[in-house]
Amino acid sequence: MKPIYLDNSATTQVCLPAAQKALSLMTEIYGNPSSLHGMGFAAEQEISLARRRVAEMLGAKPEEMVFTSGGTEANNLAIFGAVQARRRQGDTIVTTAIEHPSVLGCMAQLEKQGLRVVYLAPDGLGRISAEQVMQAVDSRTILVSLMAVNNETGAVLPVEAAAKAVARAKAPALVHVDAVQAFGKMPLRPQKARIDLLTMSGHKIHAPKGVGALYIRSGVRILPQVFGGGQEKGLRPGTEAVPLIGALGEAVAQLPDLARQWQIQTGLTEECRRLLAGIDGVQFHSPPDASPYVLNFSTGSVRSETMLHFLSERGIFVSSGSACAKARASHVLSAMKLSPERLHTAIRVSFSRYTVQEEIETFVQAVAEGVRTLAKATR
Amino acid sequence: MKPIYLDNSATTQVCLPAAQKALSLMTEIYGNPSSLHGMGFAAEQEISLARRRVAEMLGAKPEEMVFTSGGTEANNLAIFGAVQARRRQGDTIVTTAIEHPSVLGCMAQLEKQGLRVVYLAPDGLGRISAEQVMQAVDSRTILVSLMAVNNETGAVLPVEAAAKAVARAKAPALVHVDAVQAFGKMPLRPQKARIDLLTMSGHKIHAPKGVGALYIRSGVRILPQVFGGGQEKGLRPGTEAVPLIGALGEAVAQLPDLARQWQIQTGLTEECRRLLAGIDGVQFHSPPDASPYVLNFSTGSVRSETMLHFLSERGIFVSSGSACAKARASHVLSAMKLSPERLHTAIRVSFSRYTVQEEIETFVQAVAEGVRTLAKATR
Repeated sequence: MKPIYLDNSATTQVCLPAAQKALSLMTEIYGNPSSLHGMGFAAEQEISLARRRVAEMLGAKPEEMVFTSGGTEANNLAIFGAVQARRRQGDTIVTTAIEHPSVLGCMAQLEKQGLRVVYLAPDGLGRISAEQVMQAVDSRTILVSLMAVNNETGAVLPVEAAAKAVARAKAPALVHVDAVQAFGKMPLRPQKARIDLLTMSGHKIHAPKGVGALYIRSGVRILPQVFGGGQEKGLRPGTEAVPLIGALGEAVAQLPDLARQWQIQTGLTEECRRLLAGIDGVQFHSPPDASPYVLNFSTGSVRSETMLHFLSERGIFVSSGSACAKARASHVLSAMKLSPERLHTAIRVSFSRYTVQEEIETFVQAVAEGVRTLAKATR
Repeated sequence: MKPIYLDNSATTQVCLPAAQKALSLMTEIYGNPSSLHGMGFAAEQEISLARRRVAEMLGAKPEEMVFTSGGTEANNLAIFGAVQARRRQGDTIVTTAIEHPSVLGCMAQLEKQGLRVVYLAPDGLGRISAEQVMQAVDSRTILVSLMAVNNETGAVLPVEAAAKAVARAKAPALVHVDAVQAFGKMPLRPQKARIDLLTMSGHKIHAPKGVGALYIRSGVRILPQVFGGGQEKGLRPGTEAVPLIGALGEAVAQLPDLARQWQIQTGLTEECRRLLAGIDGVQFHSPPDASPYVLNFSTGSVRSETMLHFLSERGIFVSSGSACAKARASHVLSAMKLSPERLHTAIRVSFSRYTVQEEIETFVQAVAEGVRTLAKATR
């Protein structure tokens, strides 16, 4: 039986053309892009093609893209690289309490190094307002780092406010956007929004795990965090992961029209909300204007792990909070000040373009059954 | 026509079972190993299997292996992680002038931070002696970093001398070995040799580019360089590159008996030497006891790039120096004090278990033809 995979914010199935591209780059065009022979040149061309494809999605120039091993590395490079480049001009960073662990982990390190980090708090539905961003940035701010879409609630953050806040405060700050959950789902134009650094990850858009990219706006200087053979203009050395980079380019080429797909996903998520609302006790923790690729709710009666296990046994795969915070209470839902009852019974479903209505119906029926049988048993 | 690929020190063709494993982990078992459902558990199991397989090659425990995005990242993690952990106990690092750029790049950074780095110089055939290592280590040494096999000459370095030198000097040093060109080719037993940290890379042993591992001996503490969701015991966070890690495990499982394969490769390399020696002007820059997977020589008459191009047009792919130092004169051959005439006409051929005698014959014939026609033209 085909699994019902509703954990697409954690990772996605690689689409067939991307997988086939990776296979061909493992077994046929397997040269080192730095090699000065035909097999090397062919590999180099595959990387150039992928770079053009990823850049195009952002309205960016190919030379503004640096490939990394994924979103975590891209976020680390952006944050440490920016702070090291701007350290003498200020001492404050503005971010939010609901960022991905790879952003919050960097922030904790920077606090140890003496930087001041301002964490904007979300409201009860996970929202951060443009006003919060405007008020937090001042003339000592050297970095503003906001995610575009929250991975647990789907909340869309006001990333355009960052550059405005920086301009108004005359801050020496770079603007970084972790767009891992937004890239390939909503239009992103970093140059227009005056975003300096933007992170994307392959495995959230049907490319393989192990590859991502950092957009670095022309003229913006950040410092490298890894040293070696000079690849990626010295910003990310190491033999390029050609099969993954090629697959990423192919996955980007396979993306559907974003606006049209957004509409389709909205229809699916609304139907999922409508059906879930019929289950006694269910509350939603995604704002009404969230990305339709994510829906967070709680049953109020069945612990998340119990429900996950119940659903998994039926071939339905969902998440409690984020896969990146295995077995710990979600820092996002905690920051939203959910009651313990809600915090410990939360479920995240996340969709992809492969999700169909029937899967959502089966999922909701299973949740209803779970609530009927498990809530009784665990009381 | 099947290419004659003799650039295996730069990168290798992925073996079919490894490529198929990657494909299956992209399209079938595509879960996030941190996810608490069946698809996540299945991915986690694939990583565990790969970890056991890689560890076994080193006689190590699975929990001593940390997966990275490749050799460059593993070298960076080992070197910065070790130096940061031992910084208060000394200020000196011992390494060689012929390390990989990813080691030398870290050293240059550490020198900027005020550390003293001792670079051991090779002899005219690229050799470093055990005596050199013994003499260089003193009580202020906090790290000794030696490669096991040089990537340009195949010279085998006296890595066992490192731990002996550290013990004799009572140095507070960790021992790091960059074994990228040795892993899967010669037996490595880090625990026995008292090596604390050992780097391997997938794409040199018929696994894909974009994955490697760092062995960290039980009880040895180094500091992480990337921060995030806690994967790889917090030492290398980020969603695990499951398809690559699984493929790496499979490539390791496919490795032939090392001793027997070493013998086969020795036969091939000796034949290659014998045939090349018949070409007027050829000199060898690999020591007689080098790894048989690498052979460095120069024609003395045709510039490396010219010869590379000539061979590439005939479907024969070799290298001048290292692919990691595109278009620059080799720092390894420079450290060996080769004359300019030799430095600029050097060629590296590197073999794999897929290399056959006939390819070597075709290669040598082409070199001979190149010398006949090109040496005249370029004089």
